[in-house]
Amino acid sequence: MRNFKITLEYDGAAYCGWQRQQNGISIQQILEEAMERIIGERVSIIASGRTDAGVHALNQVASFKAQTALAVNKIFLGVNSVLPDDIVVKDAQEAPPDFNALKDAKGKVYVYRIRNQSLRPVLGRQYDWFIRFRLDLERMRRAASYLIGEHDFSCFCATGCDIKSRVRTVSRLDIVRNDDGLMEITVESGGFLRHMVRNIVGTLVDVGRGKLKPEDMPEIIASCDRKRAGMAAPACGLFLKEVKY
Amino acid sequence: MRNFKITLEYDGAAYCGWQRQQNGISIQQILEEAMERIIGERVSIIASGRTDAGVHALNQVASFKAQTALAVNKIFLGVNSVLPDDIVVKDAQEAPPDFNALKDAKGKVYVYRIRNQSLRPVLGRQYDWFIRFRLDLERMRRAASYLIGEHDFSCFCATGCDIKSRVRTVSRLDIVRNDDGLMEITVESGGFLRHMVRNIVGTLVDVGRGKLKPEDMPEIIASCDRKRAGMAAPACGLFLKEVKY
Repeated sequence: MRNFKITLEYDGAAYCGWQRQQNGISIQQILEEAMERIIGERVSIIASGRTDAGVHALNQVASFKAQTALAVNKIFLGVNSVLPDDIVVKDAQEAPPDFNALKDAKGKVYVYRIRNQSLRPVLGRQYDWFIRFRLDLERMRRAASYLIGEHDFSCFCATGCDIKSRVRTVSRLDIVRNDDGLMEITVESGGFLRHMVRNIVGTLVDVGRGKLKPEDMPEIIASCDRKRAGMAAPACGLFLKEVKY
Repeated sequence: MRNFKITLEYDGAAYCGWQRQQNGISIQQILEEAMERIIGERVSIIASGRTDAGVHALNQVASFKAQTALAVNKIFLGVNSVLPDDIVVKDAQEAPPDFNALKDAKGKVYVYRIRNQSLRPVLGRQYDWFIRFRLDLERMRRAASYLIGEHDFSCFCATGCDIKSRVRTVSRLDIVRNDDGLMEITVESGGFLRHMVRNIVGTLVDVGRGKLKPEDMPEIIASCDRKRAGMAAPACGLFLKEVKY
């Protein structure tokens, strides 16, 4: 068996997310079917983590094992020639036999895009969360500072998630806004809980619009109560930017 | 009668172009219907010029006359509340009685976006022409230099166009490429012929890929023969950026 590592860019708008599901078309399904057409065998492709319905990836990493004798470059070009226009393999290489894109992931970087302007955006609207009321960047940065480090992030974890430990370490949480009103929130962690970035962003937006105070954050975190934090930000503004190994 | 000047941003992908047509939905129709819902009267909205099917606008300018007593800001907010998400009015003001967005336009600036990279782009693919083979920027700039100034641009005019004079003056034709492979071609003129920008871009791309030489341009222009120039670039990469009055 050979082992492969691939890097993917995708537009999540049309999909039910990374993972195969009964009631929707997933990126995993489309990719596995494309791969089967090229290498002539069924493969199970493992990503560094699931992305939710509507979430995009700039550099998702995935791995799979196959018996094919095809050169990796042939697989790379072949699979791209049959993938739809909203998924592309950016890189493909042969990986060490024990490489596993999920288990070996050491960390991930997500970017969330907010279009903060009074006017409804039109061009590029597919890739932003539009927020009309002016967000206070400094307040959001103060709130963000409380999230950096190791915490129990239960208050930002999707309800119904049955994971054992919800302690995670956020090593980076930057917020920048350019002159056009585009705000980018970058979050890095060794591991994320389900909906964690979107729930953090929704909460930071509540701070930016004055509904919450930056100083409320320690209490919200300590409560471990999902209802205390803000709503989840929409999926369309979220991008998986990098997976670290 | 009052006279109004409005500035529009739109994503042209879903439309048959600016102008009303029998066999398709135009931006003009959608806008006139939205305006009628808000001000309660039928209006005829005149743009600075037509944009073709699939072409976008960052700042299209249009004008219309109406009897409404509504404050201009009410019209502005009202029409935006009923327009679909791919059209927005960015600005609305009362104009002098004789202002006409078409007749008074002194010049226009178009921007054409090319994504020049080996890999098929995914995120933002709606707004670029993807060209895989490496374009030679310096050759394209040399070719562009021949187009600046007053010329008979017949070779870049859509066939079947029955306009009298095809002499136009291009005052600016810049080409830049950033590190990500995004190439932007900016063209400014007092007036454009039908498909002129897209035909110029298609021809410059032929130069950039080596199919034509920069030094072929004077002869192509002098021929006044549409078949001598390159193919029209796709509509999706073209943006009306500015109308000058």
